[in-house]
Amino acid sequence: MKKKLIEQATGTETEFSVVPSVTIDCVIFGFQDGVLEILLVKHASGIKEGEWALPGGWISEKESIDDAAHRLLKELTGLNNIYLEQLKAFGNPDRFPLGRVITIGYNALIKKDEYIVEPGFTASEAEWYKIKEVPDLIYDHSKILDFSLQRLRRRVRQAPIGFNLLPEKFTLLQLQQLYEEILDIKLDKPNFRRKILKMKLLTNLNEKEKDVAHRAAKLYSFDDEIYRKLTEKGFNFEF
Amino acid sequence: MKKKLIEQATGTETEFSVVPSVTIDCVIFGFQDGVLEILLVKHASGIKEGEWALPGGWISEKESIDDAAHRLLKELTGLNNIYLEQLKAFGNPDRFPLGRVITIGYNALIKKDEYIVEPGFTASEAEWYKIKEVPDLIYDHSKILDFSLQRLRRRVRQAPIGFNLLPEKFTLLQLQQLYEEILDIKLDKPNFRRKILKMKLLTNLNEKEKDVAHRAAKLYSFDDEIYRKLTEKGFNFEF
Repeated sequence: MKKKLIEQATGTETEFSVVPSVTIDCVIFGFQDGVLEILLVKHASGIKEGEWALPGGWISEKESIDDAAHRLLKELTGLNNIYLEQLKAFGNPDRFPLGRVITIGYNALIKKDEYIVEPGFTASEAEWYKIKEVPDLIYDHSKILDFSLQRLRRRVRQAPIGFNLLPEKFTLLQLQQLYEEILDIKLDKPNFRRKILKMKLLTNLNEKEKDVAHRAAKLYSFDDEIYRKLTEKGFNFEF
Repeated sequence: MKKKLIEQATGTETEFSVVPSVTIDCVIFGFQDGVLEILLVKHASGIKEGEWALPGGWISEKESIDDAAHRLLKELTGLNNIYLEQLKAFGNPDRFPLGRVITIGYNALIKKDEYIVEPGFTASEAEWYKIKEVPDLIYDHSKILDFSLQRLRRRVRQAPIGFNLLPEKFTLLQLQQLYEEILDIKLDKPNFRRKILKMKLLTNLNEKEKDVAHRAAKLYSFDDEIYRKLTEKGFNFEF
């Protein structure tokens, strides 16, 4: 199947062979300063022109699905060298209005300020949205986002996922806020501290925050060995 | 895309519309009497005629991918009402010799003797194979099987998966053999017993095996409430 695509920046038209009936969609979570966001794009042409969508598109005939996910994400949003993981395929017969298309979801969780987002390819805009402020999305993209978010919530309870989103030295409050934001719950402070310290995952750096308006809190870092062990074996973090 | 399919039993030719470029493949693990097996089929026609394969095939235009997986499994092997879970999509560009086809893997783990296997549709044979005796499989089916097996091994360490494969009343040795077979390792008996009993998951029935040639062992069942709790929250079973 041939697809004609118009590059936004240059207006160049390209025709290339793609796999019919299958697309890729990427759910990119970005975390920064206690806030979880999701990366969305607006396509400048096509049937859903001007509506927000997960970054995604067609798979070229000669690339693997993993390569297609990396390429599309880079082309549409400028994000490069991201650790993308496949979610699963979404294949309800009525999910795409112009025919039968199955989409394969991919997922990443990144530290937002380490990357520069720049729309390209068929995307005229690429923006971060707070999870609670996500606009209506095209097709079944809200369902794909929701599936990915539920999976992330399950996983942060089972392994030290997302801990790499914190600064190298962090306070217990920052760690608590990471969990609260991802899980969308309020945690009991003493209870959270007791449980997290019991895991022996944190190293007390015997340092305190500097230049803060509030009372300076103790700084911690992760114990590399225990972090690695917990990543391999998992844990069960009950709050 | 139209596909012509020949029903083995009747020789009837059927033409139906399928989603081009995408197929389904099912990895069905069966457990019985301490042995883990995998269900394979032999297709009676097509380019890989007479070679063993995972049960799978094309998706009809109007069915969801989950429905396609259930239909194909039923048609090819007779297995019905199975709890199938999607694995992921496999999409290397060279995985299928006659063009670009992405396959979506599905997975189940069943008690073998609760089901009758009967080849049908395009399958001339359907057989259980011991994991260590699996023959060469078509395309990338060995990779799909391997991925599924690794995932099963990770999961049985994290939740009471597979415990429903045991008889209602079982001995500690049967439980140990379940783990040994799935993980393909030998476990230290006293160590295994100490750890599993510590989880409080087992109820000592104060009964012993009957009519056995060896010394009758104590029988256990699962504590429903703890089983449910561990299924929800997961555990980490380190041997």
